[in-house]
Amino acid sequence: MRWGHRPHRDARLTTHVALAARALGASGFVLSDIVDKKLEESVAKVTENWGGKFFFEMGKPWRKFVREWRAKGGIVVHLTVYGENLQTSPVLDRIRQSGKNVLVLVGSQKVPGDFFSGEVSDFNVAVGNQPHSECAALAVFLDRFFEGRELGKGYGKAKIKVVPQERGKKTIVGC
Amino acid sequence: MRWGHRPHRDARLTTHVALAARALGASGFVLSDIVDKKLEESVAKVTENWGGKFFFEMGKPWRKFVREWRAKGGIVVHLTVYGENLQTSPVLDRIRQSGKNVLVLVGSQKVPGDFFSGEVSDFNVAVGNQPHSECAALAVFLDRFFEGRELGKGYGKAKIKVVPQERGKKTIVGC
Repeated sequence: MRWGHRPHRDARLTTHVALAARALGASGFVLSDIVDKKLEESVAKVTENWGGKFFFEMGKPWRKFVREWRAKGGIVVHLTVYGENLQTSPVLDRIRQSGKNVLVLVGSQKVPGDFFSGEVSDFNVAVGNQPHSECAALAVFLDRFFEGRELGKGYGKAKIKVVPQERGKKTIVGC
Repeated sequence: MRWGHRPHRDARLTTHVALAARALGASGFVLSDIVDKKLEESVAKVTENWGGKFFFEMGKPWRKFVREWRAKGGIVVHLTVYGENLQTSPVLDRIRQSGKNVLVLVGSQKVPGDFFSGEVSDFNVAVGNQPHSECAALAVFLDRFFEGRELGKGYGKAKIKVVPQERGKKTIVGC
């Protein structure tokens, strides 16, 4: 879930967050509080061409979405520079041990203080305790959460597929 | 090295790429071909407050920078959706075995075809063969390259330091 999106200013960044979520193994993307049709179209176009299933939701107030997610037995992992360090603490093991569905919550610069509380987040996780990027943080979190396997997985019903190569560009189109 | 930056359109994204580079263990950041003082200031401010050494260069033509880098014995890793898969191929081992300094080259949507050639890149690496984000790709590449250790490292001469916590925000200011 991406919180605090400003359609004009964050257009490219939020698109990157959504596409990183998809490519790094997330099942879907939630844009909280805001409706942004252009963003939805960009993501839909990638999923249509590159395959796989990837849900996209938007417009629901973040508090409502989180409440419903937790009511269904899911947990919330809030990525923040202030949280437990992904590398030096055992927080990832604790998240995995929960065995529950995970909603990863990323914000922009200033998130509501509530995000840190037990009513919203089950875990506050820092992808390093240095300021950087919600897009980078999400990517590293997912890569570690899935132990790297997500980068090798196939995407069903793809119209475009890359054939990895040492040099040049090779795609299969219309697979 | 970030190629293809458009100061207005990419302002936030390129800042995220630079800060991700810093937080994920890179020694510095190069903005090729373009001078963007605002970007330089944003990055300098973070380094000044959060510590550590992080070089910032901008304005040099990419071809010249790459040529000089390689002349000094460095190698170039071009991150691209078309490259060898970071997870399913042994490309990372081959990069590490070179034992050389690495320049990671990230572009935007359409990079010069030369980037794929042996005259520019020693390796073309895909952080998954799905389209996503240069910021996400760089972060995952660096996290794997440094085997995660970069997230636990200290930053010298910091004015601000986070004290990681399960809940809330705690910083030491003026350390």
